[in-house]
Amino acid sequence: MKRTIFDVEHEQFRETVRAFLLKEAVPNTADWESAGLVDRRFWSAAAAHGMVGFAAPEEFGGAGLRDFRFNAVINEEVVSTGAVGDGFSLTNDIVLPYYLDIASSDQQARWLPGITAGDTVIAIAMSEPGTGSDMRAIKTTASKVPGGWRLNGAKTFITSGIQADLVIVAARIPDADGGGFGLFVVAAGTDGFEKGRKLEKIGRRAQDTAELFFADVFVPDADVLGEPGKGLHYMMGNLAQERLSMAVVAVASVEHAVRTAVAYASERTAFGRPIGSFQANRFTLAELSTKATIARVFVDRCIEASNSGELTAAEAAGAKFWTTELEFEALDACLQIHGGYGYMEEFEVARRWRDARVQRIYGGTNEIMREIVGRSLGL
Amino acid sequence: MKRTIFDVEHEQFRETVRAFLLKEAVPNTADWESAGLVDRRFWSAAAAHGMVGFAAPEEFGGAGLRDFRFNAVINEEVVSTGAVGDGFSLTNDIVLPYYLDIASSDQQARWLPGITAGDTVIAIAMSEPGTGSDMRAIKTTASKVPGGWRLNGAKTFITSGIQADLVIVAARIPDADGGGFGLFVVAAGTDGFEKGRKLEKIGRRAQDTAELFFADVFVPDADVLGEPGKGLHYMMGNLAQERLSMAVVAVASVEHAVRTAVAYASERTAFGRPIGSFQANRFTLAELSTKATIARVFVDRCIEASNSGELTAAEAAGAKFWTTELEFEALDACLQIHGGYGYMEEFEVARRWRDARVQRIYGGTNEIMREIVGRSLGL
Amino acid sequence: MKRTIFDVEHEQFRETVRAFLLKEAVPNTADWESAGLVDRRFWSAAAAHGMVGFAAPEEFGGAGLRDFRFNAVINEEVVSTGAVGDGFSLTNDIVLPYYLDIASSDQQARWLPGITAGDTVIAIAMSEPGTGSDMRAIKTTASKVPGGWRLNGAKTFITSGIQADLVIVAARIPDADGGGFGLFVVAAGTDGFEKGRKLEKIGRRAQDTAELFFADVFVPDADVLGEPGKGLHYMMGNLAQERLSMAVVAVASVEHAVRTAVAYASERTAFGRPIGSFQANRFTLAELSTKATIARVFVDRCIEASNSGELTAAEAAGAKFWTTELEFEALDACLQIHGGYGYMEEFEVARRWRDARVQRIYGGTNEIMREIVGRSLGL
Amino acid sequence: MKRTIFDVEHEQFRETVRAFLLKEAVPNTADWESAGLVDRRFWSAAAAHGMVGFAAPEEFGGAGLRDFRFNAVINEEVVSTGAVGDGFSLTNDIVLPYYLDIASSDQQARWLPGITAGDTVIAIAMSEPGTGSDMRAIKTTASKVPGGWRLNGAKTFITSGIQADLVIVAARIPDADGGGFGLFVVAAGTDGFEKGRKLEKIGRRAQDTAELFFADVFVPDADVLGEPGKGLHYMMGNLAQERLSMAVVAVASVEHAVRTAVAYASERTAFGRPIGSFQANRFTLAELSTKATIARVFVDRCIEASNSGELTAAEAAGAKFWTTELEFEALDACLQIHGGYGYMEEFEVARRWRDARVQRIYGGTNEIMREIVGRSLGL
Repeated sequence: MKRTIFDVEHEQFRETVRAFLLKEAVPNTADWESAGLVDRRFWSAAAAHGMVGFAAPEEFGGAGLRDFRFNAVINEEVVSTGAVGDGFSLTNDIVLPYYLDIASSDQQARWLPGITAGDTVIAIAMSEPGTGSDMRAIKTTASKVPGGWRLNGAKTFITSGIQADLVIVAARIPDADGGGFGLFVVAAGTDGFEKGRKLEKIGRRAQDTAELFFADVFVPDADVLGEPGKGLHYMMGNLAQERLSMAVVAVASVEHAVRTAVAYASERTAFGRPIGSFQANRFTLAELSTKATIARVFVDRCIEASNSGELTAAEAAGAKFWTTELEFEALDACLQIHGGYGYMEEFEVARRWRDARVQRIYGGTNEIMREIVGRSLGL
Repeated sequence: MKRTIFDVEHEQFRETVRAFLLKEAVPNTADWESAGLVDRRFWSAAAAHGMVGFAAPEEFGGAGLRDFRFNAVINEEVVSTGAVGDGFSLTNDIVLPYYLDIASSDQQARWLPGITAGDTVIAIAMSEPGTGSDMRAIKTTASKVPGGWRLNGAKTFITSGIQADLVIVAARIPDADGGGFGLFVVAAGTDGFEKGRKLEKIGRRAQDTAELFFADVFVPDADVLGEPGKGLHYMMGNLAQERLSMAVVAVASVEHAVRTAVAYASERTAFGRPIGSFQANRFTLAELSTKATIARVFVDRCIEASNSGELTAAEAAGAKFWTTELEFEALDACLQIHGGYGYMEEFEVARRWRDARVQRIYGGTNEIMREIVGRSLGL
Repeated sequence: MKRTIFDVEHEQFRETVRAFLLKEAVPNTADWESAGLVDRRFWSAAAAHGMVGFAAPEEFGGAGLRDFRFNAVINEEVVSTGAVGDGFSLTNDIVLPYYLDIASSDQQARWLPGITAGDTVIAIAMSEPGTGSDMRAIKTTASKVPGGWRLNGAKTFITSGIQADLVIVAARIPDADGGGFGLFVVAAGTDGFEKGRKLEKIGRRAQDTAELFFADVFVPDADVLGEPGKGLHYMMGNLAQERLSMAVVAVASVEHAVRTAVAYASERTAFGRPIGSFQANRFTLAELSTKATIARVFVDRCIEASNSGELTAAEAAGAKFWTTELEFEALDACLQIHGGYGYMEEFEVARRWRDARVQRIYGGTNEIMREIVGRSLGL
Repeated sequence: MKRTIFDVEHEQFRETVRAFLLKEAVPNTADWESAGLVDRRFWSAAAAHGMVGFAAPEEFGGAGLRDFRFNAVINEEVVSTGAVGDGFSLTNDIVLPYYLDIASSDQQARWLPGITAGDTVIAIAMSEPGTGSDMRAIKTTASKVPGGWRLNGAKTFITSGIQADLVIVAARIPDADGGGFGLFVVAAGTDGFEKGRKLEKIGRRAQDTAELFFADVFVPDADVLGEPGKGLHYMMGNLAQERLSMAVVAVASVEHAVRTAVAYASERTAFGRPIGSFQANRFTLAELSTKATIARVFVDRCIEASNSGELTAAEAAGAKFWTTELEFEALDACLQIHGGYGYMEEFEVARRWRDARVQRIYGGTNEIMREIVGRSLGL
């Protein structure tokens, strides 16, 4: 099914992105997986190619392109080239919007140039050891002190936590200080801010995921994002785009899995004929191919709706859970088609399979997504 | 998710169709189900409202509207009002295209006026007792005789078979007579053409489904559609639209099921609270609601592609199997939400559940659909 | 997998039962389905063959065989012969235990002889229009009056409701009269006891399912089962066997469906070869055949556990939901293998498919079953 | 459901095994995973506790216990303690039977003492780079030469390949030399026998899986197992027990997963209550718990049938595919219940999840299992 959402500038951008990833990311994937981190120089290089923070105003180093189709292009090419590129969706799709929508001009002037130059690595710290997907259970506190706030608490599962230069920390404000939750920007190196272990994960091994600790960390008033107390509202507002970003990755991942498995099933033989000629495999791939097309059409429509400000929280939640369930279903079936080879680390499908698993968990588990949709139905 | 494919004339048509069905079809549903047939007068009335054969040229009583969005509007309203309306999709979506695309001007002049007036009920006879979805296994033969052809054989599962005035019969042509398959138009009452039993089905009880028998039936050359020998090619050409038609029905059916079940689950209580507040039910409906949205976006895109001549056979096959599997999944889950009431004939969900089951079978079983998609992948 | 639970007397009983059903029930199935009722004479004949109430003491016309293997034999043969035989499981497995376990000797002497002779049709009335699977929501009341109780309320979905001579009615006892729930035996014809409509169902058409109404019905103290106030406890105690009975039917139904579909798939050809040789069908039947074996071994083990008094409520609930889900999955897949014929009423698989659907609903919906198992896990 | 297959000696053996594993295996698991190998000393220690080769005759160091219940006990305890113990099932369940059933007395005298002492690590080499589950596609050849055979070829996915002291190699015999396949015992260090890389896998990281190469390896006649040419027959004969072994592991794994997840869901809170109290989680665990019980009863029955020589190839194939599909379903669902923690390597469920995936692939993929069952149905 022909895609209809892209214009010529998106396709040109795609060429740039693809060439860059093939040259700068793909050859280093294995090394970065071993190191457990992506080299920071890669990030600056990506920024130099306009792939980081392009939605920021031009005066702060961006391109003023608040058009999610560009974000989608990067996510799709990261998947199709097999690059390690979680940093793009984290930065462009998830964290940057806070700096664009809630930060004051002064804050933007201070922070955006470094972000768009790829010099400043950004992160956002919401999850805590005890919270999971329940934002209201955040225990990290921010208490008012003269000239600023004092943060205490611990965060976990923070993407880019080790490398981050600036972390947006979600913290509970005591009722005595106004109540609600606030978003506080903390720079690496600030007194009392400690980075914990890099967490070992089943997959996404080049992705830096960390625990962060805050012990009496002082955040000046000038580094609070938006109004203290409105943090939950801000976070909710950004979730639809965050989840759409995951759906974009998921669909690209399904398409790639099907393409790869069809090729493999056409070449690999068993019992004297291509394994794709066995009806069970053919049906599996037919089923996945059809679902890939359906998911593609739907997510493209969601991108349009997001650009026009019409994508609802329930639609984004639905897109997130359905496409990520499909992604894992597809990778699991395609791994199986590879037989014993599918279980070997050296086969790409193995890495993609274990990488895909987390999509059903982060960004709000798929159970939380069903809750959101269910409540939108009035149930 | 806002639909984007319709213009104002489609929405006006929808109003007309809906009003007509609510007035003329819905009150008679129970009677027609008992009788096993829809009253022919209903058909003439529908034609008078522009709902039959509107794709035909104006000179033959149509409106010259070859725009599948109008077909879709009718199918959607039949589902959402709960009317018995298989005749619309059969006539407009499946059989009429043969008369528009292959029939000669002379044939069109003879047949189309009756069809568009709702006076002539049309059908197409492909399936045979031994063929199932395998067209090449057709055993009914058409042998050349002076001035025409002589048909012998039997057909089964023919929708509108009892009421049909004109039946397009697919028959094998002996090699001696040129080989291949041909399409022959046979009028009710022709010598040797017998209508068999009306078949009793699990559902779709007001839909007339019949066996037809042909014993030395003479068909004049003037009543052959297109070129003899090319019948298989003609049939293949129409299948994409036929399957899209089923997908349109399926999606409307899912939407209706979810809407109805959400309402029921909000009102009906158990253990002191609405049953929709139980998480298992809420998740089920969230899942179905999300899939309904996804299916809707996809089928709308297929309608666009069909109108622009771009819908491939594999896409239509994929749409057919995925949406009809979803349709039954949805109705089965929604029946379950109704508990014991769902098993009672007097509850609408019961009728819709047994009616939906056939969608996974006719128009080519969903297994054949997967074959078609699988082959399109080169497997 | 060889079955190990039966002794020679069970196998002899199986022969008797099978011969009886083939002679007396199978030829009448179509008629009984049309009539919506099984002829009462069939019931007396079955009793004469020792198939009704054999668990009752010999002095009251039974055979003193409280061995669920005999019950299982009947259920299995009803399924495998295709007889209409819901009455057996209702009488022997579900209702009779109340008369054996709670009824006083005097009550047994009055009622059991008629039951075991097949002269007295019995039923139990729990469900109400608003209760579903929630027993505590029963609204029918039994108020104490001199010499007895006065019943008021309505019941629905009562199997054998129209034909029943004796109905055990579950009713709420006002706190003023002791509270709790009681079980009251009401004879047909009692003043104020009205039988409502026979309900039209999707399937099980020869099974009499009815609404019952109670307006100031007087029940003498002598017709109360067990202690008033303990009804809920009594009902809970019988549920494990009731659910096991459904599981027995389900497994037999799966075995029959697989056997029939394998035979059909071996004979029916498409594209020039038996449809069972297509891998998708072969895998489907392999999957179902394996599950049938697994279910059989498990249910046989449950029968043993039931006989030794060790079958827990959670195990019975698990057996009920898992086997009945499997039953519908099997029948749905086997119907699909029959293609268009599967949707025709004249094909056995069609009837079995619609009959099977209710198993996931009655006896406590499968959602309630999951609740029971979940709670047994302490969740 | 109470298990009924074990006698007191099995339960005593279980105590021994459990204590041994908790002391000798569990504390070393992390180290062995890092090393990618289990320490050979562990193996000798296990042998000293009677856990290796106990089915061998006493004269050769075994206990003469050909009773699969002992094998099952070890597999179950390996799973429930979380030990690395693939070596037990490989040695006792899969490879040893060749030495017991086909080896001559002379061969047994030479080899069994070392095996039962835990000094000789054994393996079997069937799979090749191009064969997958298709044994007839084996390309490694064994050509007759004076006094023995000459082996050439390559094997892959060979469990214990790196550590093995004795490898049974399945090779094709040219027609000129009698045809068919043969089983040849090759000792490590033999000229021309090279061990390749240890393969990196998604899971089972302490399990040594290797490629093996054979270049003009000479095998004396005295080291041929059974009759040359009958190798395929021998391999088929052992497959039922091999697959049962996998099913035993799978069921134990499901039970462990459910137990662990129920405990976690009872303690972990979200939105102010234990996550197990959310109905979606409760239903998931209820479903898995029920399936665990069903699988347990079935596999115990298979163990009995295996001991009595009645387990058919189709039953074993069915047990293998159904239980291993269930195992992965269970671990995947239980991982999800752990939320973000489930994706962390430090959580046990993460390791078990990636370890479980291979069960659907090795020992014949689950697709091959369905083929075997399908063919047993005559399809």
